Amino acid sequence: MVIIICLFKGDPMSQVYATSRNLLSHQPPEQPLYLFHRALLERSVGRFQQGFPGLLTYAVKANPSPMVIETLLQQGVGAFDVASLAEIELLHGLAQTSGKSVVLHYHNPIKPEAAIAKAWHEYGVRAFSLDDANELDKLIRQIPDPSSTELSVRYVAPVKHEVILDLNTKFGANVETAVDLLRKVSEAGFKASLTFHPGTQCTDAQAYVDFIACGAKIARQADVTLYRLNVGGGFPASYVKSQGPQLGHYFAAIDKAVKQHFDVPPGLVCEPGRSLVNDCVSLLLKVLHRRDNDNIFLNDGIYGGLMEMNFSDLGWPLLCWRKGQIIEGKNTAYTAFGPTCDSIDVLKEPMYLPSQLAAGDYIEIPLMGAYSSACATQFNGFLSASYVQVEESSYHALPQVHEDSVLAQVAGF
Amino acid sequence: MVIIICLFKGDPMSQVYATSRNLLSHQPPEQPLYLFHRALLERSVGRFQQGFPGLLTYAVKANPSPMVIETLLQQGVGAFDVASLAEIELLHGLAQTSGKSVVLHYHNPIKPEAAIAKAWHEYGVRAFSLDDANELDKLIRQIPDPSSTELSVRYVAPVKHEVILDLNTKFGANVETAVDLLRKVSEAGFKASLTFHPGTQCTDAQAYVDFIACGAKIARQADVTLYRLNVGGGFPASYVKSQGPQLGHYFAAIDKAVKQHFDVPPGLVCEPGRSLVNDCVSLLLKVLHRRDNDNIFLNDGIYGGLMEMNFSDLGWPLLCWRKGQIIEGKNTAYTAFGPTCDSIDVLKEPMYLPSQLAAGDYIEIPLMGAYSSACATQFNGFLSASYVQVEESSYHALPQVHEDSVLAQVAGF
Repeated sequence: MVIIICLFKGDPMSQVYATSRNLLSHQPPEQPLYLFHRALLERSVGRFQQGFPGLLTYAVKANPSPMVIETLLQQGVGAFDVASLAEIELLHGLAQTSGKSVVLHYHNPIKPEAAIAKAWHEYGVRAFSLDDANELDKLIRQIPDPSSTELSVRYVAPVKHEVILDLNTKFGANVETAVDLLRKVSEAGFKASLTFHPGTQCTDAQAYVDFIACGAKIARQADVTLYRLNVGGGFPASYVKSQGPQLGHYFAAIDKAVKQHFDVPPGLVCEPGRSLVNDCVSLLLKVLHRRDNDNIFLNDGIYGGLMEMNFSDLGWPLLCWRKGQIIEGKNTAYTAFGPTCDSIDVLKEPMYLPSQLAAGDYIEIPLMGAYSSACATQFNGFLSASYVQVEESSYHALPQVHEDSVLAQVAGF
Repeated sequence: MVIIICLFKGDPMSQVYATSRNLLSHQPPEQPLYLFHRALLERSVGRFQQGFPGLLTYAVKANPSPMVIETLLQQGVGAFDVASLAEIELLHGLAQTSGKSVVLHYHNPIKPEAAIAKAWHEYGVRAFSLDDANELDKLIRQIPDPSSTELSVRYVAPVKHEVILDLNTKFGANVETAVDLLRKVSEAGFKASLTFHPGTQCTDAQAYVDFIACGAKIARQADVTLYRLNVGGGFPASYVKSQGPQLGHYFAAIDKAVKQHFDVPPGLVCEPGRSLVNDCVSLLLKVLHRRDNDNIFLNDGIYGGLMEMNFSDLGWPLLCWRKGQIIEGKNTAYTAFGPTCDSIDVLKEPMYLPSQLAAGDYIEIPLMGAYSSACATQFNGFLSASYVQVEESSYHALPQVHEDSVLAQVAGF
């Protein structure tokens, strides 16, 4: 576990630049560098805090960088969705450093039994999830005081909506099992809650409505008054090729559905990851090499921060920099290779970048806050994990980029 | 770079167990644990040292664990194929600790120009590869003393053979370009060599023969007497579904081809990775959970040490353990999920394991030395990087497993 602490604490928190232009002019980085735009995270937090009709928790897995977590703590986010003891230890440590207290929801439906005990006894975790009877047995065995502890039964609803990743193939009890589990949770003396996840990047608010209706049915059939209902994450972030309606549309739909389907509306919880952090981070890459053909080699690739680009088709805007200026002009479709010696380290889709691109130029990729550094390996000795703070986002400051829209034509699209 | 050093140095080198049975009886691990069988690595090293008609270098990317590197150093392996400054720094540090001197070949064909300079000046690297004119320009600019330095032109030959990963889509000059580059390398005063890579897990020795014939043609056309010819890696490791002939078959074919095609046979170099380390490491996993259906949850998955299982179809044997005894009996096809909250963290192929498998049992996966811990992320806080030393391999000690064959029927197949 020493290693995780090293990674999570490895950020050079003290470095702050005004803009990426400023950074590139004064200290062009040789390694991949994540540019953290604090104000954009504060804006995203504000939207959830002001609009979501319940408790905001942050799904740490999307981006566990201390810059992100500490900003959230300072903004008053005090609750976090964690999936492992390492994440619990990380949050515990950062909260202590910041002088804040935090509430942790250990919402991995499958947990090692020893980890449940350690989370409850050593870290004061009082909220867990489950989706089958074996997990309930573990929780009952390890938790000495059920009345202080919330157990959320994770269920799947027989509804299908457009998502980029359906999380219900791995987790979630069907309705019949959920009814049984919820009843047993309540009978065992726990605070009985329900939780669901509509899937990653859920661009249809109706999914939440259908899940909520299904949750109400489960609670009725179990004859249990819910302590809370957790509507999960899945709120879509804005990418070039994928975006949903405004968040307010989701919040209104959720609020209405809960009031409609429950006689006594339960407290609500959400656990966004991607939609909170996606737009507050840009990844700055250096072009290491250009072949005489249109193959380019970057200092990061799919073993580093670009893994998700080969798993989804969300669409990222691209800004190209040379000597502190944005390069404009006609685009070329480049095959973009990462820095390792492995031939699978190549982006499956071409990158559309200025035809004049050359070794030494930089590519800034906005909207890289989620599942980037969080998923990086150290294969072949390459690392994609360093963060600096940049006060203003070059991408969001572009005149043609309107707030809340990333469909603007920027270099690369 | 601090972080990489942490990972590479994080191994608990002092722990040695007699067998995996012994380990499981006395200290069953909660986290994924790599079992390093030193004698098997020594055997693999011996095969190359005794059989390969030239210099053995180890491709560090396959497994940079200090246990592996230090064993190689102690066995007299003094040359290493590295692809990044971090790998150079790792080897430099481990060599100093071991009191050994090492020769490093910086054989990533695409290198940052600053890294070339640092490797040459600070770390004494005197061997580099290249495959295009831009890279040669960088090398000429940064290396003040060409006569002390070997440049190997990496080429592709117009031959196709069965490999699991064709490395020639990313790297390698065609014959015409290679001729031109080799001539320029020689004219610039460098020691002029050629290098190729037949691809990962090359099960046909004829590929080497064809590449060597092509290399001889390139040298003739360039009118350059080669300093050395590097035949790359690609020697197949033995998996259940993929294995080639004995290594001796490759060595004989290479030796014969070089003598046949060159009037003055160049010195030979090889850079195996997978085939040196694959069988000296087993990965020990714990079954965290079994659903009432045949879904199991393991404490490691595709974000950890099992990534390659979803990228290739090599076939791994499986041993199941309960209370220090191997579980036998009828098998069931299980869907095996990793520990993260991500639904893509599941093996694409079922695992065939005993029907009676239960939470708390262990699965030992032999033949996991290559591209396992080397490719692990820390996603969701899970880590797959710890090594201990185990004196005897349970898998290789099974009576039905003959030396040099992994086609025996073991639990799981």
